[in-house]
Amino acid sequence: MEYQAPLKDFQFLLHSLLNFEQHCASLGLTEINRALADAILEEGARYASNVVAPLNSVGDEEEATFSGGKVSTPRGFAAAYKAYCDAGWAAMTGPEAFDGQGLPALLATPFHEMLMSANLAFRIYSGLTEGVVLALNAHGSESLKQTYLAKLVSGQWAGTMCLTEPHAGTDLALLRTSAKRGEDGSYSISGTKIFISGGEQDLSENIIHLVLARLTDAPAGVKGISLFLVPKILPTRNEENTVSCGAIEHKMGIKGAATCVMNFDAAEGYLVGQENQGLACMFTMMNDARFQVGLQGLGIAAQSYQGALRYARDRLQCRALSGTKHPELAADPIIMHGDVRRMLLTQKALVEGSRLLGLKTAMALDLEHRGASQAIRQQAGARVALLIPIVKAFFTDMSMEVSNLGVQIYGGHGYIREWGMEQLVRDGRITQLYEGTNGIQAQDLVKRKILADEGAALSELIQEISRDCVQYQANIELAPLAKSLHHWLDHWQKMASLMHTNSLENPDSLSLNACDFLHFSSYILLAWCWLQQAQTAHEDLASSDVDQDFLQGKIQCAHFYFERILPRCISLMQILLSNTRTTLTFQTSHF
Amino acid sequence: MEYQAPLKDFQFLLHSLLNFEQHCASLGLTEINRALADAILEEGARYASNVVAPLNSVGDEEEATFSGGKVSTPRGFAAAYKAYCDAGWAAMTGPEAFDGQGLPALLATPFHEMLMSANLAFRIYSGLTEGVVLALNAHGSESLKQTYLAKLVSGQWAGTMCLTEPHAGTDLALLRTSAKRGEDGSYSISGTKIFISGGEQDLSENIIHLVLARLTDAPAGVKGISLFLVPKILPTRNEENTVSCGAIEHKMGIKGAATCVMNFDAAEGYLVGQENQGLACMFTMMNDARFQVGLQGLGIAAQSYQGALRYARDRLQCRALSGTKHPELAADPIIMHGDVRRMLLTQKALVEGSRLLGLKTAMALDLEHRGASQAIRQQAGARVALLIPIVKAFFTDMSMEVSNLGVQIYGGHGYIREWGMEQLVRDGRITQLYEGTNGIQAQDLVKRKILADEGAALSELIQEISRDCVQYQANIELAPLAKSLHHWLDHWQKMASLMHTNSLENPDSLSLNACDFLHFSSYILLAWCWLQQAQTAHEDLASSDVDQDFLQGKIQCAHFYFERILPRCISLMQILLSNTRTTLTFQTSHF
Repeated sequence: MEYQAPLKDFQFLLHSLLNFEQHCASLGLTEINRALADAILEEGARYASNVVAPLNSVGDEEEATFSGGKVSTPRGFAAAYKAYCDAGWAAMTGPEAFDGQGLPALLATPFHEMLMSANLAFRIYSGLTEGVVLALNAHGSESLKQTYLAKLVSGQWAGTMCLTEPHAGTDLALLRTSAKRGEDGSYSISGTKIFISGGEQDLSENIIHLVLARLTDAPAGVKGISLFLVPKILPTRNEENTVSCGAIEHKMGIKGAATCVMNFDAAEGYLVGQENQGLACMFTMMNDARFQVGLQGLGIAAQSYQGALRYARDRLQCRALSGTKHPELAADPIIMHGDVRRMLLTQKALVEGSRLLGLKTAMALDLEHRGASQAIRQQAGARVALLIPIVKAFFTDMSMEVSNLGVQIYGGHGYIREWGMEQLVRDGRITQLYEGTNGIQAQDLVKRKILADEGAALSELIQEISRDCVQYQANIELAPLAKSLHHWLDHWQKMASLMHTNSLENPDSLSLNACDFLHFSSYILLAWCWLQQAQTAHEDLASSDVDQDFLQGKIQCAHFYFERILPRCISLMQILLSNTRTTLTFQTSHF
Repeated sequence: MEYQAPLKDFQFLLHSLLNFEQHCASLGLTEINRALADAILEEGARYASNVVAPLNSVGDEEEATFSGGKVSTPRGFAAAYKAYCDAGWAAMTGPEAFDGQGLPALLATPFHEMLMSANLAFRIYSGLTEGVVLALNAHGSESLKQTYLAKLVSGQWAGTMCLTEPHAGTDLALLRTSAKRGEDGSYSISGTKIFISGGEQDLSENIIHLVLARLTDAPAGVKGISLFLVPKILPTRNEENTVSCGAIEHKMGIKGAATCVMNFDAAEGYLVGQENQGLACMFTMMNDARFQVGLQGLGIAAQSYQGALRYARDRLQCRALSGTKHPELAADPIIMHGDVRRMLLTQKALVEGSRLLGLKTAMALDLEHRGASQAIRQQAGARVALLIPIVKAFFTDMSMEVSNLGVQIYGGHGYIREWGMEQLVRDGRITQLYEGTNGIQAQDLVKRKILADEGAALSELIQEISRDCVQYQANIELAPLAKSLHHWLDHWQKMASLMHTNSLENPDSLSLNACDFLHFSSYILLAWCWLQQAQTAHEDLASSDVDQDFLQGKIQCAHFYFERILPRCISLMQILLSNTRTTLTFQTSHF
C-alpha cells in the first residue's frame, strides 16, 4: 500500500502551531532550525515511502519464520534495516556522548509516526532499542555504557525488553525468572520469557536483552525484581551466551515481526541499577515504549485515513441523495455521500487531533530531559507522566476505530488482503494489548497520575487549557468552541474528584471506571488540540502563500469535532456518574 | 476453540419469555411443542459443538484453496456438510411440499446462531441455500420449482447469490452482466461476478446460482435488472454449464469459506419472476441473507463472550484493588477486577439483549409468512422490514465491539492465533460489509422503512414497547427502568421526525445521520429486550426448581444495561441534533 507522509500537516503543527525553533532554543539546541527540521522530515518521508512501505505487505505475506533456533525476517527487511542504520535514523535521538545525534523528540516523533504508518512490523525491530538506550544511559554502570551504548545507538546492535512470562503478564509480582550472583560480579539468569518482540532476528549483529528477574534471596513481589542486561553474544569474549529462542508466535498481525519465546539457561547477565530496584529502572524503558506504542496507533490510523480518502475520491457508486454531483461520471465518487464523509471526517478529526497531542507530549519529554531548570524539568515530567497512559491507550483505541472505518469505506474490498486496509486493523490490534493493556494504562492514569498527586498535574493542565479558552474567545468564529471546551474542563475536574470519592467507598470502582474516564479525558484533550489548530489556521489564513484549502479544512474539521465527536463525553460522563455497585456486586456465578 | 451452546438462555427466551408453544399454535403448527423444540436444540448443540466447532481453526489455518478451476474446502468440511444434510438440518425451514420440515424461524434461529458461533466459514456454505429456496419458492416457475427445490431443500445442491461486479457493489444500477433470450425460453448469461460465497466448492453435487443480469434491450438502471437461475450442472442434460470460478479471494478471515470470482460465459440460465423485476425477486433472498448475517454477528459475539468468561474465571493476575479475594491462589482471577467485569458485562448485555431481539424478529418472520390472517401477515411484514436492517447492522457492529473486548480480556494471548479469540474478530469483520454495508442498512432503515411509510411501522413498535413500560411499572424494582425506557421512546419518535425534517432541507443529511440513528434505535430496542428479560426473570424466581443464579444474572444485567450501555443514546441524540452543514459542505479539497 502506497504511503505519502503528511508533511504539510507536520510543518503546520511544528512551525505554525508549536514554534519548533523556539522549543529547540529552550532546550539549548540553537543550531537546529526550521530548514534543517524540514529537510530531515522530507528525507525521512522518502525513506518511509520508498524503502519501508513497499515491505509492509511482504512482511504480512511471508511472515517472520523460525527454524533451528533462528529467526528469518521477511525478504527485504535486512536491507531496509541496514539503510536505516547507515542513514543515521537509528541514532536520531541517541545521546551525543555515544555518537547519537541528540535530536529532540519533537522532531523524532513525526519521523517515527511515518515509520509506523509505512510498516509497523518493521518498525518494531528498531523501536525498542531506543528504550534500552534510555534505560542503560539512566541506570547502567559506566562500564556497561561504554561496552554497549554506542553500538545500540547506531543500531549495529538491537535491544529487547523481557518482562512477560506465561503466568505473569500484567502481574509482574508473579515472575519467576531467577538470577544468581556470580563470583565475577556477573549474574546467572534462568527462566522463560514470552512475547519478546525481536528476541531473535537476523538484522543486527547482536541482541541486547533487558531482563527482569528475581534474585534467589529477593523479597517477594515487585520489590524483589531486578533488571539485568543479557547479551545474545558476550562482547568481551565474543562468545554466544546461553540465550535461545524456543519458538515464535503465530499472530493476528505484525507477522513480519518475530514475537519470541526466549529461554535463558544460566545466561550471563549484568545488573542494571541496584538490586531489587529493577522495576523502576525498567520503567524508564517502559515509558518510552508506551509513548512509541501510542505513536504506532497513530501511524496505523493515519495510514488508514490516507488510504480511505484516496479510495473515496476514486470509487464511483450511486448518486448523492441530494442529486447528481458528477454527471460526467457513471456515478458519484463515494466521498459525496454523507455517510462516507462522516467516516472520513471522523478519521481526520481523530488522527490530526491525536497527532498534535502526541507532539505536545514529545515537547514535554524534551523538557523533562533537557529543560533549562529543575522546575521546568519537574513540571514537564509530571505532564509526561499524565499524558503517557492517555497517548498509549487513547491513540490505540482510536486507531482501531479509525482503521475499521477505513475498511468500511472500502466496502467488501476492505476485507480483501491485497488492498492493505484489513492488514492495518490486524497490525494495529496489538497496540491495545502490549506494553500494558489499555485497561492497565487507564488504571495507571487514575491511580498513579491523578489520585497519587491529588490531581496536581491534572489541575495544571486544566489551567493551561482554560487560559487558551479565555484567549480564543476573542475570535468570534471560535468563541462557541472555546466556551464549550471551558464547560467540559469543569466537568473533567469534577469527574476526577468523583473517581477519588468513589474509590474511597470501593477501590474496585477505580478499575471499573478507569477506561471510561481515560476516554472522557482524551476527548477533552483532543478538543483542545482542535481549538488550537483552528485558531492557528485562522491566523495563518491572513498570510500570503498559504494553502487555503488546508487551513479551511483545519477550521471546518474543528467544528466537526466539536459537533460530532466531543459529544461522546456526555454519555461517558453519564456512565461515570452511574451506580458502580451493580457491576461490582454482580456475582461470578450470575454470569 | 470449545463451544458450548447457551441452551439455558434459549430455553428461558423461547419458553418463559416468548411462549414458544403459543407462537407455534398461532402459525397452525400445533404438533410442535416444547419438548420437541428442546430436543431439536439439544441435538443441534451436539452437532455444533462436536462436529462443526472443531473445524473452525482448521478452516482458518488450511483455508479454502483454488487450483485448476476447482475449490477444495478445508479438511473435514465435506464430512460435516454431509452430516448436516443427512441429519436434516439443511431441510429445517424448507417448504414441506419439497420435503422440507417447515419448522418455524423461531426454532431455526437459535440453531443457526449455534452454527455461526461454532464455525462461521462452514456455515456460509449452507446459509445462502435457504435464501435461494425462499426466492425460488416465491418467484420461480412451477417447472423450476419442480426441478430444483427438493434438492436445494435437502442440501444435496447448494445455492449462491450473484450480485456484485467489480465496479458495481452497492450500486447495482451499474451492473453489466448481460442476458440474451434464447429460442427455447432459456437465456444466455455472460459476465463476471465477484465476492460470490461458495461460488465453487466440493461439498454439494451441484451449485445453483441466482444471478442478476441485464437483458440487452432492458431499460437503464435498476429497472432493467432481471434474475436468473444458472446451475453449475444442467440437470436436464447432466452437462456442465459454462460457469467457472476464475479465482478465490485472500481475505482477513472466514478463510475456510471460498469467496469466488465467477465467470459466466454464455451460460444457460432461466428467468426467475418477470423480466426487469429481478431486484424485487432477489430481495426475497437478500432479506433472509441480511437476517442471517445479523445472526452471524450475534454468533461470533456469543462465542467471544463465552471464551472471555472462561478465561476470566481461570486466569490469575493481580489482586482486586479492594483487597485479596482468593488468598488460596497466587493471584485473584481477573474476573474480580472492575475493568474485566465491565467488559464481560458489556459483552453479556449486548449478546443476550440482541439474542432476544433476533428471536423477536424471527417470530415476526414466521407471522409474515404463516400468520392466520392477512392483517397479521401484513403487520408482521412491516415489523420485519423495520427490524431487518437493525438486526443486520447493529448485531454486526456490536459483534465487533464484543469480539474485540474478548481479545482484550485475554490480554496478549488474545492476539495469538492458537487461542481462537482473534479469529472471531477477523471472521466477524465481514458481517459489517457483505449483504449491503452497514451504512446501506442504516440508509434503508431511515429511507425505506421509516420515512417511506411515514413512520407507521415505527409508531406501532413504539406503542407496543410503551404498553410494556406501563405494565412493568407495577414492578417496584423495575419501575425506574421502565420509566427510563418510556422517556427514550419519546426521544426516538422525535429523532425520527428530525431525520425527516432534516432530509427535506438536505437529503444528504439522511445518509450522514443514518448510522447514528440506527445505533440510537438499537440501544432503545435492547433496553426493551432487557426490561422484558428482567420482568420474566422476576416472575420465574417465584417458581420452584429454577436456576436462581441465572435469573439473578438476568435481572442484574438489565440494571447494568440501563446504567452503562443505554446512556450511549445521550451522545447519539446530541450528535443527531447537531448541525449537519459542517459535514455536508466540507469541500472535497479541504480533506
